[in-house]
Amino acid sequence: MKSTETTFHVRYAETDAMGIVHHSVYLVWFEEGRSHHLRSLGSDYAALETSGYHLAVTEVQARYLAPARYGQRVTVRTRVESLRSRSLSMTYQVVDAESDHLLVTGRTKLVCITRRGQVARIPPEWRQALLSVDDPAK
Amino acid sequence: MKSTETTFHVRYAETDAMGIVHHSVYLVWFEEGRSHHLRSLGSDYAALETSGYHLAVTEVQARYLAPARYGQRVTVRTRVESLRSRSLSMTYQVVDAESDHLLVTGRTKLVCITRRGQVARIPPEWRQALLSVDDPAK
Amino acid sequence: MKSTETTFHVRYAETDAMGIVHHSVYLVWFEEGRSHHLRSLGSDYAALETSGYHLAVTEVQARYLAPARYGQRVTVRTRVESLRSRSLSMTYQVVDAESDHLLVTGRTKLVCITRRGQVARIPPEWRQALLSVDDPAK
Amino acid sequence: MKSTETTFHVRYAETDAMGIVHHSVYLVWFEEGRSHHLRSLGSDYAALETSGYHLAVTEVQARYLAPARYGQRVTVRTRVESLRSRSLSMTYQVVDAESDHLLVTGRTKLVCITRRGQVARIPPEWRQALLSVDDPAK
Repeated sequence: MKSTETTFHVRYAETDAMGIVHHSVYLVWFEEGRSHHLRSLGSDYAALETSGYHLAVTEVQARYLAPARYGQRVTVRTRVESLRSRSLSMTYQVVDAESDHLLVTGRTKLVCITRRGQVARIPPEWRQALLSVDDPAK
Repeated sequence: MKSTETTFHVRYAETDAMGIVHHSVYLVWFEEGRSHHLRSLGSDYAALETSGYHLAVTEVQARYLAPARYGQRVTVRTRVESLRSRSLSMTYQVVDAESDHLLVTGRTKLVCITRRGQVARIPPEWRQALLSVDDPAK
Repeated sequence: MKSTETTFHVRYAETDAMGIVHHSVYLVWFEEGRSHHLRSLGSDYAALETSGYHLAVTEVQARYLAPARYGQRVTVRTRVESLRSRSLSMTYQVVDAESDHLLVTGRTKLVCITRRGQVARIPPEWRQALLSVDDPAK
Repeated sequence: MKSTETTFHVRYAETDAMGIVHHSVYLVWFEEGRSHHLRSLGSDYAALETSGYHLAVTEVQARYLAPARYGQRVTVRTRVESLRSRSLSMTYQVVDAESDHLLVTGRTKLVCITRRGQVARIPPEWRQALLSVDDPAK
């Protein structure tokens, strides 16, 4: 399964008193990587979301290797690691956008739920898209 | 109209690379002051919220006089400044909990809306409560 | 004085239980607009920051006209409104990136401070740059 | 090693468009649990921090079992799981404060660093305190 990339500047509000990006912010960036990855599915995704399905995070792991700082451009690389009938696992790499130096790695487990919060099978069209995603921006 | 107070520690995640609380965080604290103020209304508030009304922020102002830092205990003082049929104005003072030194002042305008986002009259029971709130914690 | 623009997607973490972007987030976006505006000054800005000066927010105002939602592309337009010897005022417009529909307006007052937190004159090179900034991305 | 507890209300800004607390927020709560745990060490901690040592997060894990919602009172239970010469592992349980229902569990690895970011031995006094902490609030 292909990975996608999204790049942005570190915001000042994302730093903490140690002068570096607060460790909780990387989860927001993982999610932004995931949003970008899913947006790469095109109109199919919008259709699926309005059809009432959602991906909820059930588990997260992150390893902090090197700090990011204000103004730095960072890239989040996102990939579907494994896909089951009702859940999937995604991995993330946050790297410095210029040097490609690895800063943080992460993994989230997600489960497909309905609007009422009940676990459901990932709809087949979405499943197909997740298996074949290709980054149009690369 | 009486003011209420709520006190808590500054969180590390709320600081920025200047070593002080990020200026956007005070809006979250104003809201926490507001939540505490409304909770002081007791069970009436819960009833009103489930009845489908909400207060949406339409305007905010803040003046930053002195910085807050990690671990410091701060108190938010909240007061209803004025109450109209569909909107109200609330003011906030954030002070150091030990010295009572004034750190930040703020004001928000709020409008009563229905679940669908339509402007509505503030229900009479809520109105009554907002006029007479008294802090049970003081 | 010219305005600059920066455009990005609304993040899921920026929404709240009303299904819209939380009102405190716009201050982070104003700051991101400000960062982009200052980055447009090019290498001069980096030089000034490492020379020990900083801009601290002393006052903020925001008016919320229409909500932003997850996935929406928003543009922040930033402009220097007025420039004094030790302080400046900047204004912001957050608009929907496709329709140019106005969502939120804001204004911040900033004061030039040294690393020790003392108010200082805005250095002449920075002053010059702030007066003549032109967006290379437009 | 004893655990400590800290209890607070969920803030509105901590929720997301699914109507529940955003998953990144629990890392902020873990840190708040950690801050409370370390504050329980009393004046020793302040002395150690100003002496130039810091605990940096190198790894985090969280499992999301049930959602928290606005206004709910939650308790974070924090415990030192293991203590080595330069690092330690802490675990967290976030529970509903009324029912004690388990919402989220977590673990962070932390390393002792100097102000310059170099890995260092945990000072003996701090070590002693971490082994014997007892919650004065319980």
